[in-house]
Amino acid sequence: MKVAVVMGSTSDLNKVEPAILILKEYGVETAVRCLSAHRAHTELAQFIEECNNNGTEAIIAAAGMAAALPGVVAAQTVIPVIGVPLSGSVLDGMDALMSIVQMPSGIPVATVAINGAKNAAYLALQILGNRHENIREKLWAHRAQMHEDATKANETMIEKYR
Amino acid sequence: MKVAVVMGSTSDLNKVEPAILILKEYGVETAVRCLSAHRAHTELAQFIEECNNNGTEAIIAAAGMAAALPGVVAAQTVIPVIGVPLSGSVLDGMDALMSIVQMPSGIPVATVAINGAKNAAYLALQILGNRHENIREKLWAHRAQMHEDATKANETMIEKYR
Amino acid sequence: MKVAVVMGSTSDLNKVEPAILILKEYGVETAVRCLSAHRAHTELAQFIEECNNNGTEAIIAAAGMAAALPGVVAAQTVIPVIGVPLSGSVLDGMDALMSIVQMPSGIPVATVAINGAKNAAYLALQILGNRHENIREKLWAHRAQMHEDATKANETMIEKYR
Amino acid sequence: MKVAVVMGSTSDLNKVEPAILILKEYGVETAVRCLSAHRAHTELAQFIEECNNNGTEAIIAAAGMAAALPGVVAAQTVIPVIGVPLSGSVLDGMDALMSIVQMPSGIPVATVAINGAKNAAYLALQILGNRHENIREKLWAHRAQMHEDATKANETMIEKYR
Amino acid sequence: MKVAVVMGSTSDLNKVEPAILILKEYGVETAVRCLSAHRAHTELAQFIEECNNNGTEAIIAAAGMAAALPGVVAAQTVIPVIGVPLSGSVLDGMDALMSIVQMPSGIPVATVAINGAKNAAYLALQILGNRHENIREKLWAHRAQMHEDATKANETMIEKYR
Amino acid sequence: MKVAVVMGSTSDLNKVEPAILILKEYGVETAVRCLSAHRAHTELAQFIEECNNNGTEAIIAAAGMAAALPGVVAAQTVIPVIGVPLSGSVLDGMDALMSIVQMPSGIPVATVAINGAKNAAYLALQILGNRHENIREKLWAHRAQMHEDATKANETMIEKYR
Amino acid sequence: MKVAVVMGSTSDLNKVEPAILILKEYGVETAVRCLSAHRAHTELAQFIEECNNNGTEAIIAAAGMAAALPGVVAAQTVIPVIGVPLSGSVLDGMDALMSIVQMPSGIPVATVAINGAKNAAYLALQILGNRHENIREKLWAHRAQMHEDATKANETMIEKYR
Amino acid sequence: MKVAVVMGSTSDLNKVEPAILILKEYGVETAVRCLSAHRAHTELAQFIEECNNNGTEAIIAAAGMAAALPGVVAAQTVIPVIGVPLSGSVLDGMDALMSIVQMPSGIPVATVAINGAKNAAYLALQILGNRHENIREKLWAHRAQMHEDATKANETMIEKYR
Repeated sequence: MKVAVVMGSTSDLNKVEPAILILKEYGVETAVRCLSAHRAHTELAQFIEECNNNGTEAIIAAAGMAAALPGVVAAQTVIPVIGVPLSGSVLDGMDALMSIVQMPSGIPVATVAINGAKNAAYLALQILGNRHENIREKLWAHRAQMHEDATKANETMIEKYR
Repeated sequence: MKVAVVMGSTSDLNKVEPAILILKEYGVETAVRCLSAHRAHTELAQFIEECNNNGTEAIIAAAGMAAALPGVVAAQTVIPVIGVPLSGSVLDGMDALMSIVQMPSGIPVATVAINGAKNAAYLALQILGNRHENIREKLWAHRAQMHEDATKANETMIEKYR
Repeated sequence: MKVAVVMGSTSDLNKVEPAILILKEYGVETAVRCLSAHRAHTELAQFIEECNNNGTEAIIAAAGMAAALPGVVAAQTVIPVIGVPLSGSVLDGMDALMSIVQMPSGIPVATVAINGAKNAAYLALQILGNRHENIREKLWAHRAQMHEDATKANETMIEKYR
Repeated sequence: MKVAVVMGSTSDLNKVEPAILILKEYGVETAVRCLSAHRAHTELAQFIEECNNNGTEAIIAAAGMAAALPGVVAAQTVIPVIGVPLSGSVLDGMDALMSIVQMPSGIPVATVAINGAKNAAYLALQILGNRHENIREKLWAHRAQMHEDATKANETMIEKYR
Repeated sequence: MKVAVVMGSTSDLNKVEPAILILKEYGVETAVRCLSAHRAHTELAQFIEECNNNGTEAIIAAAGMAAALPGVVAAQTVIPVIGVPLSGSVLDGMDALMSIVQMPSGIPVATVAINGAKNAAYLALQILGNRHENIREKLWAHRAQMHEDATKANETMIEKYR
Repeated sequence: MKVAVVMGSTSDLNKVEPAILILKEYGVETAVRCLSAHRAHTELAQFIEECNNNGTEAIIAAAGMAAALPGVVAAQTVIPVIGVPLSGSVLDGMDALMSIVQMPSGIPVATVAINGAKNAAYLALQILGNRHENIREKLWAHRAQMHEDATKANETMIEKYR
Repeated sequence: MKVAVVMGSTSDLNKVEPAILILKEYGVETAVRCLSAHRAHTELAQFIEECNNNGTEAIIAAAGMAAALPGVVAAQTVIPVIGVPLSGSVLDGMDALMSIVQMPSGIPVATVAINGAKNAAYLALQILGNRHENIREKLWAHRAQMHEDATKANETMIEKYR
Repeated sequence: MKVAVVMGSTSDLNKVEPAILILKEYGVETAVRCLSAHRAHTELAQFIEECNNNGTEAIIAAAGMAAALPGVVAAQTVIPVIGVPLSGSVLDGMDALMSIVQMPSGIPVATVAINGAKNAAYLALQILGNRHENIREKLWAHRAQMHEDATKANETMIEKYR
């Protein structure tokens, strides 16, 4: 039960780490790499090849600016690739969003919100859930917890403005 | 081996049908629905509940404008939900993209390009590929075919401008 | 004389509270709820159903990012729904504005400015004013006050640059 | 039971007429005017004054480009004003949307989608529904019809891709 | 030799004052007003009427958000009106720019950069320069000064990186 | 009584001609030039120099894409320069608007709407009106005509939907 | 004297061909390839390697949507890479522009206008001009021709509106 | 072996200096100028003329807002011109990007990322590399260093999340 997390630069780590923590919390084996599509393409290709052969079930790829990384990963695998556009330039991640979501036909990238690393992890877990019943159950438990938190928040709100 | 395809309006069908055709071509059982988040929420909820219980492995949800559909579906399931923003207003699908990709934490939607129904299908198939080896093999074969077509296109190009 | 105020998250409260305070200042009974369209849809549906039956005359719904809340509320009622797009993502509320204002035909949301909670309250009061003459009178008094303040501001300005 | 419909130019009529037809269909007395905020401000002010005194319950104001009309109307009344941004410049109505939705505090305009004249009418009717039970009932009937149409569309879709 | 400067709110003064200071520096009689198009339209109309009759040669109008002020002024005069879009909402003045520059045919507003109050003053002075030779001469002297400053800056730069 | 009209390319003429026709209709001597800032800068500089010396009272400069023309003209004169952003690239004139309106301090360009050549002419006429009473009178007459047309349009509208 | 021209898809050819024709007109040996960064990355890498070893002096890379091609090429060479963003999606090439121009530090792409294939060719020629005096001379001759054409266009314009 | 670096204002220096430092580090003779297209066009023209005659092989031109500088430089030379859009207005450099990248046919500007001065330097060096083998070698060495740094960063990442 493996998920890979690739980012383009170490400076992206603080935005990506929430995904790693969630995956670990769910007991998923997580391979974390810092492999720029532009600066380490050979190692990136080798790593994707490894993923293709070691049973990795989802790859999270996060990048900012002209964020080629998720698309380049997606081009070399048929494992589902989840793209996380990162803010970090003056364009606030709109550049990265355009570069990640507008993929050509045949090579999809599952794009989440700008800086949406947490949702990248949850999406990966949902993909894993198809095969791993325990992950699916944990996800439903997490939804139940979210729901309970939401209910409490609502009750507090009702109380506050009664 | 089931994938659901939901769209918000029958007028979206011409943009969504390429996804349905690809799924059928891969032999995937495909449940197609026209269930607006705004006009048929009860039926939508029932359908998602069915999906939750009948082994559906991915749900493709396509919508235009203030495209709430994919997010509303995602809120009621932990099956991976793939969102397809559709153009169709004067804003050319940028409204739908914003409405689909910028989901809050905990409820991810795997967003593809504006009008990217084909890639929604391929992403669904990639998700299925984790469990269904034959789908994964067909996807690799498709990639090989894409590669061969690309090679031929390149050769034609070389020839044309020799 | 009831108005409902719904927000998607407790973190939105500081941006929404100005609306609540204005409504209370006008003596309007105000039901405040924190009910996310994505995390508490069942409770949200119940609350809307209550509104439909208890004489609520306007519903203010505020949300950020892929702000489905106002539209989801609007889909379940024919009470006027006022949508407040909230900033809070790196896209500064443009995502929420697109998600709220671009509603499909048949399910309107009365959208105000990004972070425009005060105007949501005034719009609700204007809607109430059709039935409740005292609210309308207070609104005219408020306009008179605004006008008086504007006149004084202008006089100060004239004086300053005489 | 009166609603006013104001547009800035006769060239806007084809985009505004759907609102007029819906209002008439619901039996609402509809005063239609072509009164530009920039070219006929005196007549506009007179008309708003009339509305303030003749029981008008909502004013729909539609304009394109630097669409000042809805805001100028809103500044002279406490009747709810519904703004319809119209496309018609090379900027496809984004200019009109910005000019209408971003109103300053104290003077709200209930903004609907670009070219959303139909929803402007439905929103006006929802506002009327607070006082006029028959309008509210018709709106619920309309929702029921929308729901029935949606259900049929869904059935057709199920059939088509069975 | 009169120029009027109108802003929509006292909170705009810090962004508008540079224009006032430049006009005073050039010895231009400057009438400064705080007259919102939405909150003080009657006084605004009166002030424009005064301008129309007292030989005012340019009117600078500055506003933010749904910035109707410059257009509303322009609609009531044939004196050149210079519009200054102000930042101040989360949209950073893009809303104000759209609301000011996209005027309909027949009612022009001479728009300058977002927060471009200084250029509004210089533009007003250039307009005055057609009739007032001394203003034109001062403007040429200012250009000569700008040119001299630019030359010195360039020399410093050459020196620094020699 | 002279106004210059400069455009960057002959292909812009159909969008610029309305300005020329209005100026001629008002009896203004109009010097029309096709002088790109990028392809004919020497001739452009010579022409601006002529304008500086022959009593030209306004210069209209129209350009598309990276529309440097209006700014380059403005840099070489203290005559008021009116910039007309033209659509004509895939970005629909937003590129030209940014390139024209966002001028640095000290060198203003009076920017009108995208493709707003007519308003460029009216703005030039308003500038001329400060010195030429007959132009100002004609402009007031034009406004009166616009007002009359608006009134008639309104009457037709009232009639149509009585 | 070699320039490479790479595009991502044969459907881009009609937008790219103007570059090829200009290069051929200047007598430059031109290697044209259709090699998608996503569908033919191995062949693309081989081709770049060839360019690195055969004296290629510039590489033009054109792509639409999430246009990774120019950046991927740039990552594998220190030959100057010229990126041409192509329109072709509903976002009119703004997606491709963002994906090409916003490259991370260390891997530049020389970006030209959306659909600016001609300028990509001229930029390549200017780069060649540093080593190849005859190309530089032809470029100056082209500029002289452009200037002459501009002058004639201007004369025609003067004549037309005399 | 000369490269020119021109900026529009001394306030741009902190964003431009990284380019100067890189060029100096590579032993390139660097002529740095502060010459605004709008405030020092004569000196700018003289400087470009010098560049045309002294063997300058690339010109870096950086500017913000309505950034005419790179295009104006490009219009007067056939040396490759590299444009750097600078943030510095409320529009975060999007205005400068539009003003620089969207050049008309025949006058290319090689545009890099907003605030991408470093890449402007690397692009200039790549252009020089065609003639100066030692520069090309240093660029390859720099790439090797980038690659080594990337590899180490990746190893650290692997270690951290083992």
